[in-house]
Amino acid sequence: MKYFKDIPEVKYEGPQSDNPFAFKYYNPEEIIDGKPLKDHLRFAIAYWHTFCATGSDPFGQPTINRPWDRFSNPMDNAKARVEAAFEFFEKLNVPFFCFHDRDIAPEGENLRETNKNLDEIVSMIKEYLKTSKTKVLWGTANLFSHPRYVHGAATSCNADVFAYAAAQVKKALEVTKELGGENYVFWGGREGYETLLNTDMELELDNLARFLHMAVDYAKEIGFDGQFLIEPKPKEPTKHQYDFDAAHVYGFLKKYDLDKYFKLNIEVNHATLAGHDFHHELRFARINNMLGSIDANMGDLLLGWDTDQFPTDVRLTTLAMYEVVKAGGFDKGGLNFDAKVRRGSFELEDLVIGHIAGMDAFAKGFKIAYKLVKEAVFDKFIEERYRSYKEGIGAKIVSGQADFKMLEVYALNLSKIENKSGKQELLEMILNKYMFSE
Amino acid sequence: MKYFKDIPEVKYEGPQSDNPFAFKYYNPEEIIDGKPLKDHLRFAIAYWHTFCATGSDPFGQPTINRPWDRFSNPMDNAKARVEAAFEFFEKLNVPFFCFHDRDIAPEGENLRETNKNLDEIVSMIKEYLKTSKTKVLWGTANLFSHPRYVHGAATSCNADVFAYAAAQVKKALEVTKELGGENYVFWGGREGYETLLNTDMELELDNLARFLHMAVDYAKEIGFDGQFLIEPKPKEPTKHQYDFDAAHVYGFLKKYDLDKYFKLNIEVNHATLAGHDFHHELRFARINNMLGSIDANMGDLLLGWDTDQFPTDVRLTTLAMYEVVKAGGFDKGGLNFDAKVRRGSFELEDLVIGHIAGMDAFAKGFKIAYKLVKEAVFDKFIEERYRSYKEGIGAKIVSGQADFKMLEVYALNLSKIENKSGKQELLEMILNKYMFSE
Amino acid sequence: MKYFKDIPEVKYEGPQSDNPFAFKYYNPEEIIDGKPLKDHLRFAIAYWHTFCATGSDPFGQPTINRPWDRFSNPMDNAKARVEAAFEFFEKLNVPFFCFHDRDIAPEGENLRETNKNLDEIVSMIKEYLKTSKTKVLWGTANLFSHPRYVHGAATSCNADVFAYAAAQVKKALEVTKELGGENYVFWGGREGYETLLNTDMELELDNLARFLHMAVDYAKEIGFDGQFLIEPKPKEPTKHQYDFDAAHVYGFLKKYDLDKYFKLNIEVNHATLAGHDFHHELRFARINNMLGSIDANMGDLLLGWDTDQFPTDVRLTTLAMYEVVKAGGFDKGGLNFDAKVRRGSFELEDLVIGHIAGMDAFAKGFKIAYKLVKEAVFDKFIEERYRSYKEGIGAKIVSGQADFKMLEVYALNLSKIENKSGKQELLEMILNKYMFSE
Amino acid sequence: MKYFKDIPEVKYEGPQSDNPFAFKYYNPEEIIDGKPLKDHLRFAIAYWHTFCATGSDPFGQPTINRPWDRFSNPMDNAKARVEAAFEFFEKLNVPFFCFHDRDIAPEGENLRETNKNLDEIVSMIKEYLKTSKTKVLWGTANLFSHPRYVHGAATSCNADVFAYAAAQVKKALEVTKELGGENYVFWGGREGYETLLNTDMELELDNLARFLHMAVDYAKEIGFDGQFLIEPKPKEPTKHQYDFDAAHVYGFLKKYDLDKYFKLNIEVNHATLAGHDFHHELRFARINNMLGSIDANMGDLLLGWDTDQFPTDVRLTTLAMYEVVKAGGFDKGGLNFDAKVRRGSFELEDLVIGHIAGMDAFAKGFKIAYKLVKEAVFDKFIEERYRSYKEGIGAKIVSGQADFKMLEVYALNLSKIENKSGKQELLEMILNKYMFSE
Ligand SMILES: [Co+2]
Ligand SMILES: [Co+2]
Ligand SMILES: [Co+2]
Ligand SMILES: [Co+2]
Ligand SMILES: [Co+2]
Ligand SMILES: [Co+2]
Ligand SMILES: [Co+2]
Ligand SMILES: [Co+2]
Repeated sequence: MKYFKDIPEVKYEGPQSDNPFAFKYYNPEEIIDGKPLKDHLRFAIAYWHTFCATGSDPFGQPTINRPWDRFSNPMDNAKARVEAAFEFFEKLNVPFFCFHDRDIAPEGENLRETNKNLDEIVSMIKEYLKTSKTKVLWGTANLFSHPRYVHGAATSCNADVFAYAAAQVKKALEVTKELGGENYVFWGGREGYETLLNTDMELELDNLARFLHMAVDYAKEIGFDGQFLIEPKPKEPTKHQYDFDAAHVYGFLKKYDLDKYFKLNIEVNHATLAGHDFHHELRFARINNMLGSIDANMGDLLLGWDTDQFPTDVRLTTLAMYEVVKAGGFDKGGLNFDAKVRRGSFELEDLVIGHIAGMDAFAKGFKIAYKLVKEAVFDKFIEERYRSYKEGIGAKIVSGQADFKMLEVYALNLSKIENKSGKQELLEMILNKYMFSE
Repeated sequence: MKYFKDIPEVKYEGPQSDNPFAFKYYNPEEIIDGKPLKDHLRFAIAYWHTFCATGSDPFGQPTINRPWDRFSNPMDNAKARVEAAFEFFEKLNVPFFCFHDRDIAPEGENLRETNKNLDEIVSMIKEYLKTSKTKVLWGTANLFSHPRYVHGAATSCNADVFAYAAAQVKKALEVTKELGGENYVFWGGREGYETLLNTDMELELDNLARFLHMAVDYAKEIGFDGQFLIEPKPKEPTKHQYDFDAAHVYGFLKKYDLDKYFKLNIEVNHATLAGHDFHHELRFARINNMLGSIDANMGDLLLGWDTDQFPTDVRLTTLAMYEVVKAGGFDKGGLNFDAKVRRGSFELEDLVIGHIAGMDAFAKGFKIAYKLVKEAVFDKFIEERYRSYKEGIGAKIVSGQADFKMLEVYALNLSKIENKSGKQELLEMILNKYMFSE
Repeated sequence: MKYFKDIPEVKYEGPQSDNPFAFKYYNPEEIIDGKPLKDHLRFAIAYWHTFCATGSDPFGQPTINRPWDRFSNPMDNAKARVEAAFEFFEKLNVPFFCFHDRDIAPEGENLRETNKNLDEIVSMIKEYLKTSKTKVLWGTANLFSHPRYVHGAATSCNADVFAYAAAQVKKALEVTKELGGENYVFWGGREGYETLLNTDMELELDNLARFLHMAVDYAKEIGFDGQFLIEPKPKEPTKHQYDFDAAHVYGFLKKYDLDKYFKLNIEVNHATLAGHDFHHELRFARINNMLGSIDANMGDLLLGWDTDQFPTDVRLTTLAMYEVVKAGGFDKGGLNFDAKVRRGSFELEDLVIGHIAGMDAFAKGFKIAYKLVKEAVFDKFIEERYRSYKEGIGAKIVSGQADFKMLEVYALNLSKIENKSGKQELLEMILNKYMFSE
Repeated sequence: MKYFKDIPEVKYEGPQSDNPFAFKYYNPEEIIDGKPLKDHLRFAIAYWHTFCATGSDPFGQPTINRPWDRFSNPMDNAKARVEAAFEFFEKLNVPFFCFHDRDIAPEGENLRETNKNLDEIVSMIKEYLKTSKTKVLWGTANLFSHPRYVHGAATSCNADVFAYAAAQVKKALEVTKELGGENYVFWGGREGYETLLNTDMELELDNLARFLHMAVDYAKEIGFDGQFLIEPKPKEPTKHQYDFDAAHVYGFLKKYDLDKYFKLNIEVNHATLAGHDFHHELRFARINNMLGSIDANMGDLLLGWDTDQFPTDVRLTTLAMYEVVKAGGFDKGGLNFDAKVRRGSFELEDLVIGHIAGMDAFAKGFKIAYKLVKEAVFDKFIEERYRSYKEGIGAKIVSGQADFKMLEVYALNLSKIENKSGKQELLEMILNKYMFSE
């Protein structure tokens, strides 16, 4: 069965196109800096939102009814979903997808049956991968939906749950390896607490570290050489999630000697829920050599939950891609659309349009960012701004030759301190020129 | 003395210009829809931020030292400030400015002396206005800085303070009339409370209404026919400000029969502090025929206070101007830059650059919005979306011919309800096309 | 079948009791000011949370499996739920409950069948009411869960949906009347918008008003003399809900001449999501004679969604009951526990414990508040604070004899303005004494 | 001169006292667990707020005029302030105070003169300390108020500023040592950024670490053995402060090998601005052995800036003291009232009342917390909740004997996972009992 037969293949038609099913800014084969745009952006589809979302919310029932969800048997639906997925990947000519174990195959009566379900679908996907241009960016395990994870997985108060989660991640690692996944992601969906009154935070964090060490060990054992990623999120679904933001995760990894094994998967809407610009989280990750991958979406800053909207704000995508370009581009990571159509956008074509809008917004942002970096627009300003650390007392400070006594002598003899304007307004004016005057 | 002698006159040079002292998108004389751009946008300078701001904040001393603040006598400074202001207005070729009484002339030993100070500066400004191309958009009274207003002005617990505030507004109305101001604004700087434990909210709101009625009466008496405006703000400086947002003010005006005399002056950063998109506040004002004027700036949505940044986000200015264009443009109102340079942008040229950046962002936004309205891009979609209210049962509902019993009969006989997608992603895609594909 | 057979009847045992199934502060028959405590507090159970909630959230499946949800036929479950409900009411000796139409009876194949289902359960409840001490505080219609309401109900872009909603409210009014409900509540679950780009806000608000007028007319027609209530909420589930907060609703009701028919049902967590203290919303409602009823719960102020926790913060309940006592107590309204056990509190006894904790917190708060009001603790302070409006110029202002000219003369002759401290710290100290020194 | 002559000495009078100048819950000499209450609580006065605050805010002039600020010469004021301070300390019988260098002595024409000013006041304070019962809890340097710090101090883009800051901290360390200070605090008032567009975040953080290492080295050199503390704050005054919250600081200290030299000074209002409960920040600090000291105040969670209110919420103080008691009490740290009277509380007695209210709230909170810990109320529940990690597979996980393969075998053989309720409602009910039933 063809699921998207009414949707034409999505091609690049350029900025003047009025075709909602065409790219206006994303030309996958356009060569920039010796590399096609598709390899700069490494777009991925999020299996869960794109193929599993129903439009339900805490106040309402599903609004979305996909044609691949037409069977009574969950395994039949799972297979139809694979068909639909690869048809969709081809339609959008997208190089990657990402998945949770439970997105692709349903839970069975027990773990053994669940794993069997998973194996069956993995085989099917493997067949598709042989001929498809689309590959696996990353896999992960869903350790938050099932009621067994009500109090967390690796941070559950129940050791049986920890064990079950371990078994599930073991399998997910195997599956990710088998499907050629380039990364493996941990998003601690319920790794947090609801109230400190009932929580042994120290034990929970120690256990989380134990869990991740076991994952690292097992990956070595099976020869999985993908990149491990942690995706921070501050406060949903639990009241406090341990992987609150990039800096929280960084400190955690340092504490437990895990920092050499993990990078970060930064999501736009998780950044803002934590009180940070997305730009900030990427910068933090970049300067700490932790920028692994991106969950591309957009939040509503006036709402207090993760809306996971398709990213269409080009100022946002420009500043994001600025950090990626400065980091030298993605290594194993990419831009995964952890985004869902609005509950009211329940038609099949909205799914395609949402992705096109997001891909165009990131392509446009990339092009602006690339030019800003290539022309060293902000770099030159910054170099000049911090020039005092290149010579004299500044150079001594940076090279470790200065101490408080030397600096006091210097300060006592300073006649006057001259600061210069930080020029925020000018820099924003220049950013607008690069955004709008091409 | 020339204060901006190192700054060239700011002219339109077009989108490709690299000159920070040129407009890239704002061409004041460009005719759109039979009217020059300057008359569509009606830009105004905020006297307080632009000529009085010092860069101090709750944690630090001033960083800004303007050349017109060089005297020891406050009246000398006030006069120098007038000189500087009109030089600045000319440099930027800006059609309007706005002021508080205390921005332009300092408080004296007592009210009589204060009024005398004000009269002296008003005479001086009047002279300038004779030959200047710049006019007064609006005046207002500062009823929040002096310690007498610690518990509010019209809502003070102290009747003497109410009386003093009344005297001050009386004078400010006279002065605004004398200077040809097209509007008079009330921003209730301390009209709110810190704690309900000590507050008679009912009396305070009644008093606020009494105060505004007196202002209306006095304006009639002196023949001031400018538009009265209220500027909502939710929570700064007091913990709760009575004029919380557009809808709060609307209800207040209705309650006290003041709605026919007042429109709204909507500020971007006040909208977002109240939990609303700026777009929302403008829409609310527009459909209630209350859209008077705009305080143009930009906030940081991750910060909880009024940052009053220069507006450079073109998505924001586009959606704002969309509402203005749909409202038929400004009548007496305009775009007042209630914006200040960052504390670190303390150089004189930053002041010019900030305004250029803001004016360009609004000019660009206006052009995009104008095209969106002219081509009825969203209007056509909306007309189609609500078509069911043009005929059949919908037309009966709208015309008042339907009641619950008729509708129940109709509903009982409905075979199936068909909803259509709201198409948010598509509409955002189209918005981007209009923003980036010109 | 007995559902709560392991739970003893909940009785008052006093503050020293360690029994989790006893009231420590709520003694229903305790006479205060000539009236038993139960009549001051008028507690109600929310049928939806208490009997229908499953613990599912956007990231996880149900954790709660109630014994009354054991049937495959929804009507069988609905009947078992009624049995469980009245057993629960008796166990807690609670005087009221509240319900949505869809809480008590399931949707059928079409409206006719749905109404038939409803009738059947209503008959059953009516039987129970004959002998039960528990009555109906209010009824309402669920106009948000079913996908037909994806774009709103009375504010839907689809006139068929408006009609269907009208039919549903017509029936809900009839049912509420039949069950002796003292109020009827409108919570506009989807009356709002997701994006202004696709929204005709003016038409939607006009339609909402038309809908409410029809409800008023129909209530008159059938002789339903319960109080109509609107429950404000700012931003969930839609991005912007029209009934944002008390002041928004007030302005809306004024605009459409609906204010004489409606009061407010204020919910704690909705107040805080709108940026207001619960205390504030109650004060606003009280001074505008709009304080109808309360949805008693508690939010987490660091989370951006409606957590609907059981209220256990006695400072919160004290300040809330302060306003209720000042208002002269509830008329037809009451304290409805629109609160749900945490997802991790999935045991049956948690349901009982949550309610006891909430009832005790409100009983304790009431007692403190009652004493504060009776001893005029804050009233005396406030009277003194605003004394200047009782005489001289203040009395002239309040009585309408003052104008700007008179006030200017007065102000010009004022020698000095003397303000007094607002004494917030002292008042909070006194509040603590009343809370902790009994 | 006596500054507080109208204020009686503040004594403990017990919970029934109506005397606003008496302690109701804080009896300094009451022995609990073998130690007087004053040694458990270690209250400190913040010199800046208590003796220097003026009530000015971004929208208004000072409202507070203290009698010790009556001189024209700043050094005369500084000396009068010392007199007033020690009179105040005695009046309140408070064991500690805290200060910035610039609180106690004014800046001179140059660093040399500034240091001379400081020396003069330090000598004076030293004399007072000989006979006073009040000691120095901690000292710090003000590296944020002067315009030289506009772009930061240790993170300034200007090496001269770094040097100046170093000289200032060197002196502040010497002075803190000389005055017997038990701790030295770093609050990075401007260590952050306004916009990433102009910021070399990597260099700035490296420089911050260099600065702190120099401080550690110099402290060793002069034999200062006080505890170094960092006080996190997320976003005021800069848009992003590097010491965002406890976890951010923890990661930073780990990265730069500074963690063994520093603990944290946690402030209530800074915790909440970062999106955390105060309780959370203390728990995080405690389990990482970083709980140094507390800045005791209270914020308004509906406002987005640091209000620094006097803490009067006993639920807040109870949960805070719970962590302190669990940590074994303060070592060198204490409870510093980084709190200011409201702008409207400008009378001298408000200063006394604010402190009494705060001290009583913490004393009451301590007593409740102490009982909760002593009776192991929550500890017993938690021990039982996590019991599965004491034996069987849980014990293997904790002891490092488990790996994914072993856990998979275990999970495959699990028949059913049994979770128990987290009982949040019950625990909150119990908390209320301990708060209200003594
Ligand atoms: Co994600
Ligand atoms: Co997300
Ligand atoms: Co403004
Ligand atoms: Co503002
Ligand atoms: Co409710
Ligand atoms: Co709610
Ligand atoms: Co502090
Ligand atoms: Co603070």
